[in-house]
Amino acid sequence: MSLAVYPGSFDPLTLGHVDIAGRAAALFDRVVIAIAHNADKTGRYLLEAPTRAELARQATADIPGVEVDLVPGLLADYCRARGATAIVKGLRHGSDLDAEVPMALLNRDLGAPETVFLPASPAHGHISSSLVKDVARHGGDVHGLVPDAVARALAAALPAGRDSQ
Amino acid sequence: MSLAVYPGSFDPLTLGHVDIAGRAAALFDRVVIAIAHNADKTGRYLLEAPTRAELARQATADIPGVEVDLVPGLLADYCRARGATAIVKGLRHGSDLDAEVPMALLNRDLGAPETVFLPASPAHGHISSSLVKDVARHGGDVHGLVPDAVARALAAALPAGRDSQ
Amino acid sequence: MSLAVYPGSFDPLTLGHVDIAGRAAALFDRVVIAIAHNADKTGRYLLEAPTRAELARQATADIPGVEVDLVPGLLADYCRARGATAIVKGLRHGSDLDAEVPMALLNRDLGAPETVFLPASPAHGHISSSLVKDVARHGGDVHGLVPDAVARALAAALPAGRDSQ
Amino acid sequence: MSLAVYPGSFDPLTLGHVDIAGRAAALFDRVVIAIAHNADKTGRYLLEAPTRAELARQATADIPGVEVDLVPGLLADYCRARGATAIVKGLRHGSDLDAEVPMALLNRDLGAPETVFLPASPAHGHISSSLVKDVARHGGDVHGLVPDAVARALAAALPAGRDSQ
Amino acid sequence: MSLAVYPGSFDPLTLGHVDIAGRAAALFDRVVIAIAHNADKTGRYLLEAPTRAELARQATADIPGVEVDLVPGLLADYCRARGATAIVKGLRHGSDLDAEVPMALLNRDLGAPETVFLPASPAHGHISSSLVKDVARHGGDVHGLVPDAVARALAAALPAGRDSQ
Amino acid sequence: MSLAVYPGSFDPLTLGHVDIAGRAAALFDRVVIAIAHNADKTGRYLLEAPTRAELARQATADIPGVEVDLVPGLLADYCRARGATAIVKGLRHGSDLDAEVPMALLNRDLGAPETVFLPASPAHGHISSSLVKDVARHGGDVHGLVPDAVARALAAALPAGRDSQ
Repeated sequence: MSLAVYPGSFDPLTLGHVDIAGRAAALFDRVVIAIAHNADKTGRYLLEAPTRAELARQATADIPGVEVDLVPGLLADYCRARGATAIVKGLRHGSDLDAEVPMALLNRDLGAPETVFLPASPAHGHISSSLVKDVARHGGDVHGLVPDAVARALAAALPAGRDSQ
Repeated sequence: MSLAVYPGSFDPLTLGHVDIAGRAAALFDRVVIAIAHNADKTGRYLLEAPTRAELARQATADIPGVEVDLVPGLLADYCRARGATAIVKGLRHGSDLDAEVPMALLNRDLGAPETVFLPASPAHGHISSSLVKDVARHGGDVHGLVPDAVARALAAALPAGRDSQ
Repeated sequence: MSLAVYPGSFDPLTLGHVDIAGRAAALFDRVVIAIAHNADKTGRYLLEAPTRAELARQATADIPGVEVDLVPGLLADYCRARGATAIVKGLRHGSDLDAEVPMALLNRDLGAPETVFLPASPAHGHISSSLVKDVARHGGDVHGLVPDAVARALAAALPAGRDSQ
Repeated sequence: MSLAVYPGSFDPLTLGHVDIAGRAAALFDRVVIAIAHNADKTGRYLLEAPTRAELARQATADIPGVEVDLVPGLLADYCRARGATAIVKGLRHGSDLDAEVPMALLNRDLGAPETVFLPASPAHGHISSSLVKDVARHGGDVHGLVPDAVARALAAALPAGRDSQ
Repeated sequence: MSLAVYPGSFDPLTLGHVDIAGRAAALFDRVVIAIAHNADKTGRYLLEAPTRAELARQATADIPGVEVDLVPGLLADYCRARGATAIVKGLRHGSDLDAEVPMALLNRDLGAPETVFLPASPAHGHISSSLVKDVARHGGDVHGLVPDAVARALAAALPAGRDSQ
Repeated sequence: MSLAVYPGSFDPLTLGHVDIAGRAAALFDRVVIAIAHNADKTGRYLLEAPTRAELARQATADIPGVEVDLVPGLLADYCRARGATAIVKGLRHGSDLDAEVPMALLNRDLGAPETVFLPASPAHGHISSSLVKDVARHGGDVHGLVPDAVARALAAALPAGRDSQ
């Protein structure tokens, strides 16, 4: 059985993430959305890890073979513990590649399986978690960028008028 | 009448920014240097927004058709409110493109007009606000990188000997 | 009156080209699709210049303010002769930028106006003339990539069974 | 059963190609090295297609699950005919990505399966078929870059003294 | 006598840094590993500057012509004070280039010598200080990425179980 | 004594090439402009090799320590024969890097010395031999892009009216 781990912060999950998860699910028997707890980013997340996980679960409930998990430590350790056969990452552009390939090679050094890259679908290639947060912070409409439940979670996490002082 | 919005932090304004503003002014009837108030960057600016705006006004006083404004919220909202026909951005290299194109596409989704990109002039392509701040912080000479008034504002904002402890 | 020149080989015109022409027409009073006759590419075009021009005319007939012309010599000379106020180019990714910016700076040196870049729309960012020719040569379906008349012209220019020997 | 198609010219096959094929074989039940017959490149190949196929077969004889085939027409058609579940490509750097992603998206439009990208292994990331040919043409030693049989085939295809006039 | 300055944070020094220093030492009579004290990064370093310097000294003790120094101020000032004939930097990929070239041109404006770039060796191209810190923070094994003494210093700086709360 | 080899086609030599040669001459005791005779490009050069060499000699006559040579075979062989201590290349942008780094690593494999990269000076970063030829072919003015003698050689090689048929 092939098992792919799709790691990330997912802070928040976007429609681009959902798209990659669904396409990965067509390639592998099972796909785990592995929500990373990054030690040196503590306090820098907008949404708590359990919230991010719950939103990912809701958004992928209809995609057979996809599950969600939290990864507190090293991704390579998690992959080995789960018996993963691949890591999956989306790629939007050259800067993504420059950042992701070193991580993929490093993970291989650390005992993780191969990282395979899927190019972002054209409709979602411009969506990133940080742009979504930027829009939400300024009161912009993030429907069409994230699942509806994520849009609601962002609205709740970002009190109205935050920029009005 | 064509109206282009040229958005950015301009913290601080560089000669590269002045060059783009001047070239945009030759392409559009009116150009607004739109100084963004970015909520999640509060406290991370070196110069206050009114100072940045005043410096931009002085530096572009001689370029017909250029004005300066502060944008507290979403850029797309500002563009719609002003009836802008284009957003203008400078491009220095591939990493710029990778960061700017998603923002341009997102702005279109949010109702903003087309973003047009102007390549940085060779003489200014290596100047960025963050490099300028780095030089100024270490007591380096930033003339030739920024307008004179900006150089003075940086000197005032960065007390002498900041690095000498 | 603002006049933008949109230069290229257009061998053949794609839906990506039509998209850029339409978006440019919203930014400038008039847009000329300037079909370049490149001396060192003679014999390397699949479609003759008049055919390419005719196809461009048909595909943009409904976009107000767009015209088509043939440019036998230097683009900068053509721009000056027409009184162009801008050159327009589409940008798909970093490699495009690396190739286009030198040309833009060179054109400025040669007396041409500013080149402004429009990012490819997500739906068309993966379409290029050379990929289209590749598909057509192998008998693939190019609808959805090019206007219908272009698809027919390609079919006529590429005899059936070309790859069957 | 998962079946990945690994397409290319393989003119000639390098150790980088063998590495990608082997890593793909660990991810998919079966991998087909699909040697493309590119119509508009006829006459531009150094080695004939059957020779390229034979060399690929020899070089991957020890990798379980790998086979070699010739693809005369459209890759997407071949993938459908074979019931492929994925296309596999190696990625060395940003320019590769800029060239490959449009092809991947286009193939999806044409009915081909998802393209997954594997980053080149560090030891092979600088090897390309064209650099190998360049070295061989100048009488350089290509061992360490290609399988031994390929080195011999190159020596045979490139008469000694070719550059000595 | 040629003197090259190899600047960086070296927080921490990696085997990639040692490789560049060694290769620079083959090109120049003398190479100074110049450990930058960056004012706006104070508090963001994992290791103190004297520790970083000591680790660099140990790791390059066997490379003739290499020394280590601390640079509290502007790199260009340091280069002039030392009579440096070149600055040396490693390059891993396009994003590195986009960040480094502006700095190189700026340094030239500020009176520093030419910056020469050495491509990362394949075996070390995926190692960066930030990835190393990430791995160490999660309790991963950083041998093979950094000199042994650096691995020990990281273990000491990062208390066990940091991620276990 | 340090000896750097600066290889290329130099078809034709540009002011960007002259700039790199001069800057290399400040870094190394001696610099050889090594004009490559590329077997698979025979017939594709605009200027004959002896002409290119003569033009390079004239253009660098005033730069102490620079000489010009023809390299008929493998660059690595030439470097070894000359006892070169470095190869020098100019870098304009990310696409250059992606093409040049593999060549640099390959040359190391073949016994050549280290390749060091110099970033193009802003004033010359947009000049390439192929753009210059394009301009010259269309009767454009190439002064400011190439040395005067090169401009004359191009005019002689490209008969007037070449594009007028």
